[in-house]
Amino acid sequence: MENMIFKRTSVRNYTSEKITNEEIELLMKAAMAAPSGCNAQPWEFIVVQKREILDKIMQVHPFSTMLKEAPLAIVVCSNNDKRPQFVPHVQLWPQDCSAATENILLQAAEMGLGGVWLGVHPRYELQKPLSEVLNLPNNIIPFSIISIGHPKGDVKPKDKFDKTKIHYDTWEEK
Amino acid sequence: MENMIFKRTSVRNYTSEKITNEEIELLMKAAMAAPSGCNAQPWEFIVVQKREILDKIMQVHPFSTMLKEAPLAIVVCSNNDKRPQFVPHVQLWPQDCSAATENILLQAAEMGLGGVWLGVHPRYELQKPLSEVLNLPNNIIPFSIISIGHPKGDVKPKDKFDKTKIHYDTWEEK
Repeated sequence: MENMIFKRTSVRNYTSEKITNEEIELLMKAAMAAPSGCNAQPWEFIVVQKREILDKIMQVHPFSTMLKEAPLAIVVCSNNDKRPQFVPHVQLWPQDCSAATENILLQAAEMGLGGVWLGVHPRYELQKPLSEVLNLPNNIIPFSIISIGHPKGDVKPKDKFDKTKIHYDTWEEK
Repeated sequence: MENMIFKRTSVRNYTSEKITNEEIELLMKAAMAAPSGCNAQPWEFIVVQKREILDKIMQVHPFSTMLKEAPLAIVVCSNNDKRPQFVPHVQLWPQDCSAATENILLQAAEMGLGGVWLGVHPRYELQKPLSEVLNLPNNIIPFSIISIGHPKGDVKPKDKFDKTKIHYDTWEEK
């Protein structure tokens, strides 16, 4: 159990080391390798490295103080125009964006980086000011923010395995 | 780019080979290593191997014909009682269950297995009959189904990388 899934944990403290363009490209490739309903790939990514924009995001998201020292934030967005245009599949985009977010976090862990997932969707009171900060058009909906950097201090994943959450065939038969 | 993220693709055709208990345990460990809002871990997993139950799932989910030859389905559920009991965090559980679902798919790919994510949430018309098939209590909400098996034939991930979906700092600055 040494793979990226078990290496990943939420990391909120970072050194001042920058993230390279090559690292960012690999994070983006990992994001877009995620599955999506009807393979619609209804996502867009805002790669934020400017200190001014990172600070503005901190002002609108109440749980984003780790951005103070983060060299990078990736805002995962949904593109309304790329969602499957029929019910029920139009409803799957939050799951698509979640899979892309998780892939970014895992790829970061694989590369020795650390990150944390900040929820945005479905909170309109966060989505609206964040859209303004990022200058998003109306069809682009911010879904999550991932804060990323080189971990400062030890990174120790939690063991969250709990056998009582596994059920066989139906709920009762344990 | 050889890691599990880039190996994973949706696999809908399987050989008759069974999935071992050790493989199932590792899939479950991967699932529960996922991040969750407030670290609430609001998930439960139904590991379905009985042919009778797999067939019943096929009858209630319209896009599940691959279960005909799948030796395993994992139904990822949310446990209402384990969600953070305050607004806004109570709304994050679909993202938690998505991260767990993606981890299972990635761990399967890592082990040479193949799987596909079948959306269930937020379709009540699927959730209700699926809950009946699995005998779920009212506080357990089925979120997704993952069909898993040993791939039959070649598995070739799609290259979905698209540079136009990456934006720097704000929407305009490309």
